[in-house]
This record gives sequence, C-alpha cells and structure tokens, in this order.
Amino acid sequence: MTKEVFERLLSEKQYKAIKSIFDTMNPVDTATLLPEFEEKELVLLFRLIPKENASMVFTYLDPEEQQILLEAFTDRELEFIMDEMFIDDTVDVIEEMPANVVKRMLAAAGDKRNAINTILNYPEDSAGSIMTLEYISLHPSMTIGDALKKIKSMGEESVTVNICYVIEKHRLLGTISAMDLLTCDDDEKITDVMDENLITVHTLTDKEEVAQLFDKYDVLTIPVLDKEDCIVGIVTVDDAIDVIQEEAEEDFQKMAAIAPTDKPYLKTSVAELWKNRIPWLILLMISATFTGMIISSFEDALSRLVVLTAYIPMLMGTGGNSGSQASVTVIRGLSLGEVEARDVFKVLWKEVRVSVLCGVSLAVACFIKIILIDGMLLKTDGVNEMIALVVALTLCATVICAKVIGALLPIGAKILKLDPAVMASPFITTIVDAVSLLVYFGIAKSFIDII
Amino acid sequence: MTKEVFERLLSEKQYKAIKSIFDTMNPVDTATLLPEFEEKELVLLFRLIPKENASMVFTYLDPEEQQILLEAFTDRELEFIMDEMFIDDTVDVIEEMPANVVKRMLAAAGDKRNAINTILNYPEDSAGSIMTLEYISLHPSMTIGDALKKIKSMGEESVTVNICYVIEKHRLLGTISAMDLLTCDDDEKITDVMDENLITVHTLTDKEEVAQLFDKYDVLTIPVLDKEDCIVGIVTVDDAIDVIQEEAEEDFQKMAAIAPTDKPYLKTSVAELWKNRIPWLILLMISATFTGMIISSFEDALSRLVVLTAYIPMLMGTGGNSGSQASVTVIRGLSLGEVEARDVFKVLWKEVRVSVLCGVSLAVACFIKIILIDGMLLKTDGVNEMIALVVALTLCATVICAKVIGALLPIGAKILKLDPAVMASPFITTIVDAVSLLVYFGIAKSFIDII
Repeated sequence: MTKEVFERLLSEKQYKAIKSIFDTMNPVDTATLLPEFEEKELVLLFRLIPKENASMVFTYLDPEEQQILLEAFTDRELEFIMDEMFIDDTVDVIEEMPANVVKRMLAAAGDKRNAINTILNYPEDSAGSIMTLEYISLHPSMTIGDALKKIKSMGEESVTVNICYVIEKHRLLGTISAMDLLTCDDDEKITDVMDENLITVHTLTDKEEVAQLFDKYDVLTIPVLDKEDCIVGIVTVDDAIDVIQEEAEEDFQKMAAIAPTDKPYLKTSVAELWKNRIPWLILLMISATFTGMIISSFEDALSRLVVLTAYIPMLMGTGGNSGSQASVTVIRGLSLGEVEARDVFKVLWKEVRVSVLCGVSLAVACFIKIILIDGMLLKTDGVNEMIALVVALTLCATVICAKVIGALLPIGAKILKLDPAVMASPFITTIVDAVSLLVYFGIAKSFIDII
Repeated sequence: MTKEVFERLLSEKQYKAIKSIFDTMNPVDTATLLPEFEEKELVLLFRLIPKENASMVFTYLDPEEQQILLEAFTDRELEFIMDEMFIDDTVDVIEEMPANVVKRMLAAAGDKRNAINTILNYPEDSAGSIMTLEYISLHPSMTIGDALKKIKSMGEESVTVNICYVIEKHRLLGTISAMDLLTCDDDEKITDVMDENLITVHTLTDKEEVAQLFDKYDVLTIPVLDKEDCIVGIVTVDDAIDVIQEEAEEDFQKMAAIAPTDKPYLKTSVAELWKNRIPWLILLMISATFTGMIISSFEDALSRLVVLTAYIPMLMGTGGNSGSQASVTVIRGLSLGEVEARDVFKVLWKEVRVSVLCGVSLAVACFIKIILIDGMLLKTDGVNEMIALVVALTLCATVICAKVIGALLPIGAKILKLDPAVMASPFITTIVDAVSLLVYFGIAKSFIDII
C-alpha cells in the first residue's frame, strides 16, 4: 500500500477502509509507512490501527515518531500501549525519550515499573540491558501434561517465545522447546525430556559476546543469570541479530574514522554528519605534520632529485593499503573471537611471512613497472635503474613494516582493553606514511651518496 | 574439557569415560575440540561420540576434518550420518568436498539424494541454496487436535523448527507456531488460528536480501516459494545470522582491498593470505602511476618551492580519509537497504553540504596549524601566509571532491549492478590522490604566478 492510497482515503474520511487495510498489513510495514505522514495525520492513522497490532507497530517506529505519539496519547492510550509492549522494547523506547515523556511512561507502566527500572539499571552494552523478563517457567516436578496445562492457562499473549525454562528456586535446570512438549507423552516427567545442556550468560556479559554465542550455538534464546546464578531474564535471537548488525556498523564506521552512530544515513542531519566526521579528520590532518617534517628535513635530497617526489604517493598508498589489509583482518578476527590477544606471536609470525611474500612480489612488479612504463614508455626525467632499485627496495621494506604494524596495533589495543577497531586504516595509514618516508629517504640517501 | 584430559584418557584407553564426557558436552564444543587431534585420534574420538550427537558434531566441524572423517567412515557409518544430518547441512558439506567424496556421499544419501541435488542446483547466493526441505506441513482442513496428532506421530527428530506451515496443493496459506498449537483449544480450526501475514521469498532471491528480511521482521523462519508460488523449503534464522556475518566480513575485506574469504585468519595459510592480498596491491600500485605523472609534470614548480612537497602527504591523506568516510557510509547504507540507487540526488545534496562544512572547518584549522606550528614553532623553510593559503584552499577543494566522489561511486556501482563495496577506501583513495594533486598544483601555480 502506498502513501497516496492512504492520503486519498484520509481526505475522504474513509476511516473504516483504512482500518481494514491496516488489518491486512504486517506491523513492520505499517511502521515503515507511518513516518511519511505529518504529525496530525500520523496520530490519526495510528489510532486506526487494529488494537492487537498497535503496540507492535509502535515498537517498530523510529524514536521521533514514537515521541510524537507518546505526547499525543491520552492517559488511557498510553497505559494500553505500555501494557501491551514487551518490557525489553519498552526499555528501548524509554532510552530514547526526553525526561518528561519518560516520567509519563513510567507513571503509566503499572506493575511493569519495577521490571523496567531493573533493566534500565544495567550497563548499556550488557546482556542485562537487552534481555526480556517475559518467559515461561516450569517446575521440575511437573509432567508434560502439567506443563501443557500451565501454558494453556497463561493464554496466547504471554507466549511469544517457543522455549520454556525448567526452574527450581530461581536456578535454571534445563530448557524444553514447545515442539518437545508437543511430541512427548503427557505422563513423561519434564526433567526426563528437558535439555540440560545450557548456554547461559551473566547480566554483565558484553552484548557482543552474547550475540557471538547465538551465532556459534545456533540457539533461539539465551538465559541470563545474575551473580548468584539465578535466572533473571532471557535474550532472544532477534535482539542478537540487531547487536550483530550494530557492532558490524560500528566497526565499519571506526575503520572509516567516523564517530559511531546507529541512525540511518538519510535520516541523519548534515550537522550531525559533520560532527561525526570532523574530529578524526582534524586529528589525522594535524598528525600529518610528522610526514611534513620528514619531507622538509630531506629537502636537499629532494631538490637534487625531484623524480624521488613522484614516487611518494605510490609508496605511501601501497604502504597504507598493505597495513589496512593486515589491520582489518586482525580487527575482524578479534571481533569474531577467531583471534585472541594471546595469539600475538602466531599473528606476528604469519604476517612477517605474508609481508615478505607481498613485499618481494610488489618490489619486483614495481621495478619492472618503473623501467618499462615510467622509463621507456613515459620517458620520465631522471628515471633510471638506480631510482627503480631505490623505490622497489623502499616498497618492499614499507610493505613489511606496514603489515607488521597493522597486525600488531589492534592486538596491542585489545591487550590494553581499548577497542581494536580504532587501530584501523586511517590510524595505521598515518603511522605507515611516516615510516615509509623515513625508509625511502634513508635508502635513497645511502644510494645517492654512492652515486 | 581440555585437550590434555582427552589425551590422557586416550592413552589409558578409557573409552567409556570419554563417551561419558562427550555425552555432557554441547556438540558445538565437541566440534571445536576435535580438530586439535591428529587424523587417527580424531577418527577414534569421533566414534566415541554418542550416536544422537554424532551428526550435529559432524555438521559443526571444519571441511578439513569432515573430509578426514568421511574418508575413514565405513559405508554403514556414512549412511548413518547422511541419514541423521539435515539436508541443508549435508549440502553445505558436499559443496566443500572433492569429487570422489561427493560421489560416495551421494551414493549413501538414499532417499535424500533428489532433495540434495535440488538444492545443489540453485545459484550460490540464492535463497534456494541455503534453504532446508524439512518442515512440518499441515492441511487447512485440520483442527488443532488433528495437527497435534500429526506432529506427535512424526516423532521428535523431524521437528526442530517451532513453526508449522498450513499448505494446500503446494500453496502456503499461513503459519502457526508450536506455542499457538499449545495454547489453542483442540477443536479450533487451524485456519482460524494461523497467521496469514506471510513473509516469503523466492528460490532465486539473493540470500543477503533474505537475511535483511529476518532482521526487519524479527521472524524465525522464512518460507521459500518457487516460480509458481508453491512452497519448496524454508530458511531458518541461524542460516540468516551466518549470511549476515559472512556478508559483513565480505564488505570488510573488500574495503581493505582483500579478496573475500570465509576462512578464519589463523587457519588460512601464508600462501592463501598472499594470494588474497597481492592482486589489489599490485593493481593499486600501478594505478599510482597517474599521481607520479602529475608530480613529474609539475617538477618545475616543485623544485622552485620544495616546501609544497611537504604538504602532499597531508593533502592526500585527508582527502583519502574524507572520501572513505563518505563511501563507507553510503556502501553500508546500500548494503542495509537504507539507501537506494534512486536516492542518488538526496545523497549528493547531503554530501555537498557536509563536505563544504568539513572542507571549510579543515581549511581554517589547517591554515592556523601551518602558521602556528609549521611557521612559528618549527620554523620550516619557506612557510608563509601565501603557502598556508594555497594549502588550505586545496584542502577545502580536495575534501569536497573526495566526499562527492566517495558518495557517488558506490551508488554508480549499484546502478551498474556491480558490488558497491568495491568502490571503497583503496579505490577512492587512488582517485582522490590524483584529484588532490591536480587541484594543489593548479591553485599553487596560479598563486605562485601572482607572486
């Protein structure tokens, strides 16, 4: 359904028709459509959504639209939405709202208020902050038949998760899936059927680690335990997917020297984009003072042999590329748990061998290229075998340094408990630029003195 | 359990103890442990895994270990594993095996052979290639009671997925979750309870698109339809997570100018790493010939004012960083479906404004930095207001060009149906390097002539 259809129906006040259309739409699609309307129409349209979908649509809206609606809601509407929304989703909304809206929300939260405050109190990136408190708990003394009866009595709305937890005195003993309940005989004991092989996390476990467990063990939920190993909530796979996406985006942004944000590009204002991008640009620009200083100090050599200048961009570019290949590989390896800080020597030894291979092949290719293309084809002034040799040797040394630096810095960051992704391309490039210039002038000077 | 424990038990031939330990371990952990052993011990250990876990452990092993085991299996063992493994997992294994092993596997596949061949025939990145054919189908004429009976009769092993499909004449009418089955009354008709709001894909839908649907709609499975809209299989959320991870890794690698690979870093041989990294390095090195040519053609200006050379690395570096900020933002936006090719003018307008803001602020910072640090503090030869002005103006122009190029190239690639991620940092940097030099010498020449 397109915006135009709804505009037409709105202008004709065909509210019943709109209601019917909303009834056939997936809440996610409704939530994608609504932000295209202005404030007044948005509120009107939201009120036409069938009651059983309203909280789902609300959950999937962006914070801006959520705020518009929350401010327009009557107390009764607010209470209804708060009652229908899952606690973890409610917390997500609260975290984005200004204080006055939060106050009203908490006042309307009723008996969920304590639960909401509990989750709000966990650190931002912890398992506790993304868990939900709504799950089905069964007692180990139950038979399958008892469990079925209990679930039936709870009714449909409380059971969105297809896994039940067998719990005694707050201790998690095992899990049992809805399908297990369906296929077992009524008189079997749930303790005989339950899966005791538990994958659990603690409230303070980093949410990225939680997401990796979902990927590793292919599970649909992971129970969250507190310090005393008592179960306090569960994380569901949809939240894990969100975390995986967010963390990858954060790494992408850090690698491109952008301050991380989870706002979609087209919805981010120009001022915000500027604010996210300018700090690193200025920092890296100023740090390039070093490369400038190095060049200035070799001014004599350069003015005598200007042809050397022509190869500076190529040397720095290839150095930067080599370094970022190594750093991105190691950063992602660390992120995915494939590489650990203790593997530092394995990584070093591997990168040394790879970098020598890459360095030598590049040097050979570069030597041939200078002689054939720059010398014979383009007939560039001052190009000769000696220059080609100096450039090729520098290239080889630069590539080796770049790869070793690129691989070690992220691991170093990890050991210092910093985020390895900050040691990505732009940072590495700045260091490698300086290194490659020093190597270049060093090699050039010794060879030119020989000449 | 650590490797040492098993080594000890193996040397003492305590096979029963090993069996008991395996019985308590999660198959994923067992699969992580096994590769630490040599071929002979690996096969022995695998045979000690309890039968009900053997196929799961096998599924989670790496292709190398799978091949060792497949070659060691008796016909009977092979048939057992093939029978127990899910069809989609079997296909994943087959795709990595050499021809002789594949032949033996297909011979042992029994009645699954046709299904395996069907999936093998779908294109590599399609929904068809990652779907499974094992799901529970219910007939619309059934009541909840009938459905429960049918599921019970199928037994536990065929029901790992908690969603059932209501199908008539191969047409998917709706879905019903195991929890719905548990909470509804036996005499209700399943057509009254089922969810008709279907999210489906086609066999040829790109698997990345499928994964995005899981993220968007928070579903656990997505049914796959053929050309005639008949259901042929389902994709499960665990496969979607794998796809999301793989695609993010591919983008990371492309952005770092590495040929994509899904092998963990520490398991990749030095030769393979070299092979993945060297092609782009050589290509980018040779393409730097342009920057060399530009510098050579301005040799006169440079030999007269060597101080200009000192700012080349900073200008190119800042240009490259600005360009990759824009390109990474747009590439990820395209990847996540937040930006479409048709948004090209919106993106252009946004980047023009952001780049002017960034360009002007960097230019101001750069001018001040040159006067204060390079001029007054470091007393670099030849630094004066005019040089600072030339460099600052160039920086501003370079940043604007870099951001516009960085944002437009990925969208251009998308329009030409190429992968936007190839238009990432290294590629952009090479173009921006050339542009910034041209701008630099252009501005410098006009100002120096004035002097």
